[in-house]
Amino acid sequence: MKNITNEADGKKEDKLCLVVFSGSLDKILSAFILATGAAASGMKVIMFFTFWATSAVKKPNPPKLKRTIIEQAFGWMLPRGSRKLPLSQMNMGGIGPKMIRHIMKQKNVASVEEMITMAGELGVEIRVCEMTMDLLGIKKEELIDYPCMSMCGVASVISEASSGSVTLFI
Amino acid sequence: MKNITNEADGKKEDKLCLVVFSGSLDKILSAFILATGAAASGMKVIMFFTFWATSAVKKPNPPKLKRTIIEQAFGWMLPRGSRKLPLSQMNMGGIGPKMIRHIMKQKNVASVEEMITMAGELGVEIRVCEMTMDLLGIKKEELIDYPCMSMCGVASVISEASSGSVTLFI
Amino acid sequence: MKNITNEADGKKEDKLCLVVFSGSLDKILSAFILATGAAASGMKVIMFFTFWATSAVKKPNPPKLKRTIIEQAFGWMLPRGSRKLPLSQMNMGGIGPKMIRHIMKQKNVASVEEMITMAGELGVEIRVCEMTMDLLGIKKEELIDYPCMSMCGVASVISEASSGSVTLFI
Repeated sequence: MKNITNEADGKKEDKLCLVVFSGSLDKILSAFILATGAAASGMKVIMFFTFWATSAVKKPNPPKLKRTIIEQAFGWMLPRGSRKLPLSQMNMGGIGPKMIRHIMKQKNVASVEEMITMAGELGVEIRVCEMTMDLLGIKKEELIDYPCMSMCGVASVISEASSGSVTLFI
Repeated sequence: MKNITNEADGKKEDKLCLVVFSGSLDKILSAFILATGAAASGMKVIMFFTFWATSAVKKPNPPKLKRTIIEQAFGWMLPRGSRKLPLSQMNMGGIGPKMIRHIMKQKNVASVEEMITMAGELGVEIRVCEMTMDLLGIKKEELIDYPCMSMCGVASVISEASSGSVTLFI
Repeated sequence: MKNITNEADGKKEDKLCLVVFSGSLDKILSAFILATGAAASGMKVIMFFTFWATSAVKKPNPPKLKRTIIEQAFGWMLPRGSRKLPLSQMNMGGIGPKMIRHIMKQKNVASVEEMITMAGELGVEIRVCEMTMDLLGIKKEELIDYPCMSMCGVASVISEASSGSVTLFI
């Protein structure tokens, strides 16, 4: 019996693709736990950051840049970097994320920031959605320093997902 | 070495299945960007609309229909069509979606409504969850005109996902 | 043409893996509808409960246990079992979930609790994230009685997902 997928796109790799959409601390945490876990077990891992999730890969203190008024408005409203992310549930005006971060430290669980570093060391690729950056007025200079980061469009997501073994929308 | 998947279900197609659950403008937008992107690159695409997401495929001005009191209550509370969808984050009483729509227009990004039309032209199939329609009191007559739309149950989702190459829950 | 996935991990099974993250009634319901639907059609099904979703597999009246102050705080704030879950949209201070439950009963749709029982009978496996239990201070004694339940880490999710045919993040 023939394998139609293989005929269609060449091959299926042992590759995890994460389309990270949500900008909440808990989901970003989940994404990086899955990404580093998969990379540590030898899978190729690509994380696509789109929409609200792009806040997680922004620098906490971005350089001053020229912006339109709407871009400035988004700049004020969107979290500046992973340390400012809210929770998807039980945010309680910012107390929830502080509680989670406190207990993670107490239990010796790596913080999101440490996980991002770990992901970089493990070769996890990060691709940031160009359209999101354009819409929300995010500039390249605002993104964190990360060893394997690039910009991408939807075609890149589709092509990697279609040749990968597991793809999740988070 | 034998491919067990192929033995189990016959074949794996280059097919994208999207289980669209969330009824927020940003996630519906993401779903249609992925759907049209995949269809444009030659993949077969099926979108399953369930729960809150069904609001996105409702007509803005549905015909008057007989309804029970609970169905009327849901009718009042649920958004009437894609133009009334909230954001999953930063909704700000409806200002958020207006800002996103404004900036999308300014940057020449297609609106959700234009993407739905495009999806139809690209042959993206839409299947709406029968149980959701029954529970929320949505009638067939309320759904938008779309070239390849049908009703479905969970068996249809499982069967398509199991034979497809990529399935996402949005 | 060789199948690289098969070389890498041996085989791809007709298996549905659900990473259940959200703790809202509507998404938990969706997860169990997919899980029981897939199991009924002969697929192997594993549900991984992580973060907020662990509330859904907690007993409504857990035994008294020794807890730290932070664990007590989480214990007060997190829902006690599936009957207390909120909705992800239109929660309206708890009226939303009551309306959905009411209409589900009226339309003879199984409740979440009945679906959990059904899932157990159909052999759906439940694995609860150890790190979540540690972070949120949830003890084994607090989890519902379920025929095939165990604890797990991220390696278990990656390994099952990588050898399964469909994996969703809910």
